[in-house]
Amino acid sequence: MPSNFHLSPIRWVGGRLSLLEQRKLPLVEEWVECHDVEEVARAIETMVVRGAPAIGITAAYGIAMAAAAAPTLASVSAARERLARTRPTAVNLFWAVERMARVAEKLVSEGVAGAAFAAALAREAEAIHREDVEGNERMGRLGAAFVPDGARILTHCNAGALATGGYGTALGVIRAARDAGKKVAVFADETRPFLQGARLTAWELARDNIPVTVISDNMSGHLFSKGEIDLVVVGADRIARNGDAANKIGTYTVAVLAAAHSVPFYVAAPLSTIDRAIENGSKIPIEERSEAEVTSFAGVQVAPHGVRARHPAFDVTPARYIAAIVTDAGVAAPPCERTIAELFEK
Amino acid sequence: MPSNFHLSPIRWVGGRLSLLEQRKLPLVEEWVECHDVEEVARAIETMVVRGAPAIGITAAYGIAMAAAAAPTLASVSAARERLARTRPTAVNLFWAVERMARVAEKLVSEGVAGAAFAAALAREAEAIHREDVEGNERMGRLGAAFVPDGARILTHCNAGALATGGYGTALGVIRAARDAGKKVAVFADETRPFLQGARLTAWELARDNIPVTVISDNMSGHLFSKGEIDLVVVGADRIARNGDAANKIGTYTVAVLAAAHSVPFYVAAPLSTIDRAIENGSKIPIEERSEAEVTSFAGVQVAPHGVRARHPAFDVTPARYIAAIVTDAGVAAPPCERTIAELFEK
Repeated sequence: MPSNFHLSPIRWVGGRLSLLEQRKLPLVEEWVECHDVEEVARAIETMVVRGAPAIGITAAYGIAMAAAAAPTLASVSAARERLARTRPTAVNLFWAVERMARVAEKLVSEGVAGAAFAAALAREAEAIHREDVEGNERMGRLGAAFVPDGARILTHCNAGALATGGYGTALGVIRAARDAGKKVAVFADETRPFLQGARLTAWELARDNIPVTVISDNMSGHLFSKGEIDLVVVGADRIARNGDAANKIGTYTVAVLAAAHSVPFYVAAPLSTIDRAIENGSKIPIEERSEAEVTSFAGVQVAPHGVRARHPAFDVTPARYIAAIVTDAGVAAPPCERTIAELFEK
Repeated sequence: MPSNFHLSPIRWVGGRLSLLEQRKLPLVEEWVECHDVEEVARAIETMVVRGAPAIGITAAYGIAMAAAAAPTLASVSAARERLARTRPTAVNLFWAVERMARVAEKLVSEGVAGAAFAAALAREAEAIHREDVEGNERMGRLGAAFVPDGARILTHCNAGALATGGYGTALGVIRAARDAGKKVAVFADETRPFLQGARLTAWELARDNIPVTVISDNMSGHLFSKGEIDLVVVGADRIARNGDAANKIGTYTVAVLAAAHSVPFYVAAPLSTIDRAIENGSKIPIEERSEAEVTSFAGVQVAPHGVRARHPAFDVTPARYIAAIVTDAGVAAPPCERTIAELFEK
């Protein structure tokens, strides 16, 4: 379990899992307790918790809870299957549940059973959580080198403490730049339809006294054209081995705009977000969510009843638009295919 | 007064002006009566009525109402000044009130006074309204030539019947293509912060049985990258004499995306939207509206209280991104500086 030094959206105390109810932020701060794997899975599906690393950590705790309820491989396996059906795009989910499953198999092969089996899996989930925060701190230090003093930074969605075990990936880079004494100011895309930018990024940056200005997703083009954005940093939900990066819908548009205005575009994500089994971005599964999430706004129906909508929840930014991918294991600069492979060899 | 064949957001019957309350569409259809120039001005400021041509027509009726209340040049002049202070970007407003003021001056110079003065100004406002609809129909026929059968068309904001005297500019082009027997399908950017796309474009196209799919403003990049958009058509609020076009915030982003994917980007607007006094887009005044319109929607606060926002209401698309400007007087293709001048010479 990581220190409480950082804000974390995931609390694990005495084998009980609580999640910060991110759908109600910023106006209400409420914690939701999950009592079994099904409740954990539903919290992921309904976006009580979101953000690729945070989903992975939550799923790991879900498996620890399953092992506590029934300390058997069958129980772990059923939990793994249920959790894997929650959301398709973020690879950290699959990475975390597979790591937990491997540990469970190893424990069984070593004859560890009962309470000791459950306790070992709880410790593994805690390690995943702690390593995520430590990785974000390393990533922040590496990424801060790309942030000039006085930088006006655009970010999309929320790749912050709330999307991770704590500290954040893209927002970790911004925090580390600020902590290194640099002056920074952030433009937060509001990020429709869930408004993670207006609600979550604005909330956690304001809480951290980092200057933040919310804009609609359609405003950054104007700011780029006026020279008001110096760099972009975003997170990622899955990165192919060639560096193509899936992230929240709208990220690709930001990347095209950044390229058109010669503004560097950085991705910050842990190594566990890189899926080396996937050759390029076209192979990354893109979750399509419900139309109703687009035709309503903050619970208010806005489009005419019955009108159709589309809702791809993610898009893919080709590696050619990415100046560097900052990971917890080092920086992958173009050509990413090679530099990513080198990070894994380290 | 134009025929009632088309939907129009502006009703002028027996010297009484009613406006379709566009802030409440699509869920509530309500008409608001304006009793004096001040109420007309406030309806424009608060976006009861919006869209460059519709604002111009409404302002013209406002001047007719001022003349009916007090048939003097002083009254017309005061109304003109008040109306000119409502919104800065759309040039049709200034074009319409100046046309009304010139007619008023001519009437006075000819010795027309009292009820005859007021009646002549009412007829002039009706002519502006009627000419707008007729112009849109011509524009539609000209623009439809650019729409292939089966086209999947992206539009931004609402440049439809609701933004004009009726029929629409960008949506007029789409209507004319459909009426010419072509199959069309429309993606409507929801268009934050006022959601004119989700609320108004979706409403009027669905009402007209034209297939429409609402997307968040950050989704079109993904659709462009998947080859799902064949052309873009938008309206304009002011066009400089070199063809640079100011339109609703987010239009520039769409233009950059269209260029990056080699998809043609068309602007449809009446000649009255072209401001030949303005050399290029950098000289077009861009209205900054309130931050609260970005941090909330429909009365629901979404960002944390006290967080800053930006709200440029328009942006400028450089002429180099525009495949053609379709006007009621003909098509201006690149080089627009020359072809626009030719349209005015006709």
